[in-house]
Amino acid sequence: MKLAAFQMNDKEYYGVVEESEEVVWNVREMGENLPDTLLRGIQEGASFIQRIVESMGHKSSYPKEPPYCFPIKEVKWKAPISVPTKNIMCVGKNYRDHAIEMGSEADIPQDVMVFTKAPTSVIGHMEDVLSHHGVTEELDYEGELALIIGKAGKGIDEKDALDFIFGYTIINDITARDLQKKHKQFFIGKSLDTTCPMGPWIVTSDEIPQPNNLTIMTKINGEIRQHSNTKHFIFPIERIISELSKGMTLQPGDIIATGTPAGVGKGFNPPKFLKSGDMMEISIEGIGVLKNNITP
Amino acid sequence: MKLAAFQMNDKEYYGVVEESEEVVWNVREMGENLPDTLLRGIQEGASFIQRIVESMGHKSSYPKEPPYCFPIKEVKWKAPISVPTKNIMCVGKNYRDHAIEMGSEADIPQDVMVFTKAPTSVIGHMEDVLSHHGVTEELDYEGELALIIGKAGKGIDEKDALDFIFGYTIINDITARDLQKKHKQFFIGKSLDTTCPMGPWIVTSDEIPQPNNLTIMTKINGEIRQHSNTKHFIFPIERIISELSKGMTLQPGDIIATGTPAGVGKGFNPPKFLKSGDMMEISIEGIGVLKNNITP
Repeated sequence: MKLAAFQMNDKEYYGVVEESEEVVWNVREMGENLPDTLLRGIQEGASFIQRIVESMGHKSSYPKEPPYCFPIKEVKWKAPISVPTKNIMCVGKNYRDHAIEMGSEADIPQDVMVFTKAPTSVIGHMEDVLSHHGVTEELDYEGELALIIGKAGKGIDEKDALDFIFGYTIINDITARDLQKKHKQFFIGKSLDTTCPMGPWIVTSDEIPQPNNLTIMTKINGEIRQHSNTKHFIFPIERIISELSKGMTLQPGDIIATGTPAGVGKGFNPPKFLKSGDMMEISIEGIGVLKNNITP
Repeated sequence: MKLAAFQMNDKEYYGVVEESEEVVWNVREMGENLPDTLLRGIQEGASFIQRIVESMGHKSSYPKEPPYCFPIKEVKWKAPISVPTKNIMCVGKNYRDHAIEMGSEADIPQDVMVFTKAPTSVIGHMEDVLSHHGVTEELDYEGELALIIGKAGKGIDEKDALDFIFGYTIINDITARDLQKKHKQFFIGKSLDTTCPMGPWIVTSDEIPQPNNLTIMTKINGEIRQHSNTKHFIFPIERIISELSKGMTLQPGDIIATGTPAGVGKGFNPPKFLKSGDMMEISIEGIGVLKNNITP
């Protein structure tokens, strides 16, 4: 199931994107007592999905029109979790070829490396990314698979780790390379406003049984820059969840980005940093395409 | 004014600690329509303090007893912001002598370095810190002045920076040194559950006109380990706020820890890491003493 958050006439909704990807159903309008945001639903636990499935079961009783159903082309997308309750956790250098392009073989990590992005950096599919002129001259893209935690856990075994995932989405971990380098720890270079596009929606985990084997591709203005597969992760998802939860409680709604493959702008010689008006498209098998422009 | 959060008979309150530090007034019970947590009040802006001052103006009409007033010795303290809406931002190596004890002169930063701690790590004054046996063997203390942002801002000038501060508190930035080193980026080693004691309360900024000149001291089992002054900051508070807000919007309720002086456990030879039963006390001039034990 694809769960999306969106806006129509200044009202915020969330709903289920139909298989055809032509319409999105406003499930809250269809009978069951559903919470007001996807995040609250995820925090309520397993019954949330069951109640959405039940509501969708009644959809033939509703006309395929507003306020029950909206054409996808008319909605303004929001990030599925537009106000996370903590920073987005991001794994650094989780593909061998990317670690090497950022430096050398010596940059391939021996252990999971995690930094965070501020919640204020989150935007949705088709929302614009600020160019941040005067703050950075080296804005760069990073296409990544992200997972949303579905239930609380601490000391999670690798063999149980996938059970803690509510679903998957795409994140563009946009990075100010000059600030990332200057400030040593990555937080500042990773947290500028609008530098965490997320979406277009969450795909529930039942539809992605093999998250460590998904094609991932990033295009800038139509040119393929990153093209890889999550099977090349240095640390697969089970290991990431297990490492993070050693001594730290993971909570429903937590967002973890799994790292980016080779092909970032900094990896080219000369570097291909983002500029005003650039169009970025990240596609991941089984999820969809996350598209954002840099403001003119 | 000292604003504290606390629990009595399983109910959560916040209030004003009287000058004598013998009682805390439950301001919400005293007339005005105040929000249910300190965080919500801080998010409401400047009128929050005014309304607390008004409520306290009526205190002579109330008996100095529950539910209006509680003896400090009987309350269970909570962190003033026990569920932050994003990670705690922490400045690394902001005292020259600490940077050197962690390595050498080469470790003195040229630019502000910021990492984060998960919101799940926050506990209050007198709450116990888990020893995390089996997860870390190198638990270490770091006494720090922390500030709470009081209004939203981006691109804040150093000359205006102090106006954005709601108040000050103490943070013990407890760190798993082995994990900090192993995982390169600091987030994992800084985010174990219960490793961010905060409190005992927030002192509003009007009472601390010179935050860059406060004595700070950490004792472990009564032994003085850290003894410095915030005048030794490499980056004063105005610079920290200005750097963080370049391109990133600061929000009311944001918590920024300003770094720790020399004298952490790792700085001794041999190192003096924390062990079960240890008592930690951090005192900062004009604020008070934050005290926590490591669980037996």
